[in-house]
Amino acid sequence: MQSEPSSAPLPADLPPALCVIGLGLIGGSLARAVHDRLPVFGWSPSEATRAAAVGGGYDVVDTLDAALTRAVQQDALVVLASPVTTFRRLLGTIDELAPTVRLTDVASVKALVAEQVSVLAPGTRYVGSHPMAGTAHSGWSAGSATLFDGAAWVTCLTEESDADDWAAVASIALAVGSRVVPAEPQAHDAAVARISHLPHLMALALAQVGEQGGALALSLAASSFADATRVAGTRPTLVRAMCESNQDALIDALDDALGIMGVARGSLASTGSLAKITEGGHLARATFDHRADDLRAVTLDGADMIDQLLAVGMAGGHVSALERTGSGLAVKAWYPDQE
Amino acid sequence: MQSEPSSAPLPADLPPALCVIGLGLIGGSLARAVHDRLPVFGWSPSEATRAAAVGGGYDVVDTLDAALTRAVQQDALVVLASPVTTFRRLLGTIDELAPTVRLTDVASVKALVAEQVSVLAPGTRYVGSHPMAGTAHSGWSAGSATLFDGAAWVTCLTEESDADDWAAVASIALAVGSRVVPAEPQAHDAAVARISHLPHLMALALAQVGEQGGALALSLAASSFADATRVAGTRPTLVRAMCESNQDALIDALDDALGIMGVARGSLASTGSLAKITEGGHLARATFDHRADDLRAVTLDGADMIDQLLAVGMAGGHVSALERTGSGLAVKAWYPDQE
Repeated sequence: MQSEPSSAPLPADLPPALCVIGLGLIGGSLARAVHDRLPVFGWSPSEATRAAAVGGGYDVVDTLDAALTRAVQQDALVVLASPVTTFRRLLGTIDELAPTVRLTDVASVKALVAEQVSVLAPGTRYVGSHPMAGTAHSGWSAGSATLFDGAAWVTCLTEESDADDWAAVASIALAVGSRVVPAEPQAHDAAVARISHLPHLMALALAQVGEQGGALALSLAASSFADATRVAGTRPTLVRAMCESNQDALIDALDDALGIMGVARGSLASTGSLAKITEGGHLARATFDHRADDLRAVTLDGADMIDQLLAVGMAGGHVSALERTGSGLAVKAWYPDQE
Repeated sequence: MQSEPSSAPLPADLPPALCVIGLGLIGGSLARAVHDRLPVFGWSPSEATRAAAVGGGYDVVDTLDAALTRAVQQDALVVLASPVTTFRRLLGTIDELAPTVRLTDVASVKALVAEQVSVLAPGTRYVGSHPMAGTAHSGWSAGSATLFDGAAWVTCLTEESDADDWAAVASIALAVGSRVVPAEPQAHDAAVARISHLPHLMALALAQVGEQGGALALSLAASSFADATRVAGTRPTLVRAMCESNQDALIDALDDALGIMGVARGSLASTGSLAKITEGGHLARATFDHRADDLRAVTLDGADMIDQLLAVGMAGGHVSALERTGSGLAVKAWYPDQE
């Protein structure tokens, strides 16, 4: 596949303004990344964070109520960028003050949030997000205008989603340099359990097995151990918040890993062979390495846009640009070659 | 800890010459690394490899017999740098043509090789090696004179080892820029099972669990998945040779990993909590990060040198220099501060 030119015009469906609730790593990076492109204002429950953002030249309001009132006035897209544990309270306030606002969030689990929104703020025009970007650090000061550059930005859709609401969220993701991956909430949660949450747990387990080998083992550890345990350095509270809120999908992924490792253990003990795990794992890694080799550019339009978008995401493709044509929304995407 | 100055003088006990049997990645890199410092000659069963080495300006003999005969004449240290599966035949020939030669090897398992040497070439002055260095590539052309720079180079000792034989092997390791880690063969095998062999199996398992998530999962995978599965790209035959020859120690390490992951799975399913694995793994990774913080310089000498060397290795320390003094061998080492 080819990368998009960096001089691409702004996406067609950018909202008039962006309201960012929570100014930590993700919210703070998003404010920085869109700052030169459209009006953005934000709020954080932390006075120190608000002061830091104001000091950096950003438009910050003092209260959540003020942020939501202004979001309604400016027809802003509201982004929930605070921990998922704060969403219930936030959604209650949104349902009071901005009941039909355009809404997204950036939490790493999506089915749970979609359910909360449908119950607590059912009138909002909600499309969930998950930008697959991060660093080992957190907080406003860790933010960066380039954090989302080249990252996958999941946008969650269901049969009931509205393509125009989706286009507003997708436009923001495209404007900050991400590729947009449409997915159903449950499909997103199952996928990230395998490629994000399980890797954290395996890194944490491996770090302990290495430590159990004592000082000699740790002194011999080279790059393979260091790379494989790197994410074990993430703060435990962050890992727990992420993994525990994706319980069912993570148990499935853990069971698959335990199964593969258990079969390898049995084979090694009985026949001495590791043929199956070494060959299967090597092929799987090659599939990962070549996952984007056969993507080609397509244009989506027409009435079944949601279905088409979900098909793109499920096939490993992504959206790279939006256009408004005489007949409506035209979506440029990369999709696996069917030949 | 501080790093050694790069202008360090040559170690005191370098052998008169080096004879490298097998000119793949490790043997070829070793020949290159010592080329400017002492006479080195080698042999490979592959005519193409021999021709490539000769073309590079290296001293290569045409037969194994010629290599061993010359090793005796020049009092060379012989290095077995071919696959461990070739050792039985090589050791038989060594026992015929060079029965008391100084001998080491660079295989990634050490108890098995020590046993083979004691049976098949019992008169050799053997001290096993394992330089913890490598790349994803193999063969003479993949070699590099700097491969061993900064790596841990395990030297295997038992109660019967001779300190002077050890000093010859350690001197080569120091001359090519490695830090020397003394260890008993079984302790080495247990350690590398945890920090090298198990990480390979976990990477191979994770690659498969990710692939089972389909194209969507692979398209969302970012650096944590890519880093954690990187070594799954290693050739399966190499991984099998390494892991299957360390069966018992690897089963222990696998069982520890399966235990930790199984407990986490049970806890997640029953109480929803991942407190234990996240906190334990985070602490373990911190222990790894700080493993060399408290090392201080010491000098070893005296009659119980082998015991002192093994204590250094078990404690996470390493040898950084050798000297000859009036009273014999003086070993400079880094050892954990006991305060």
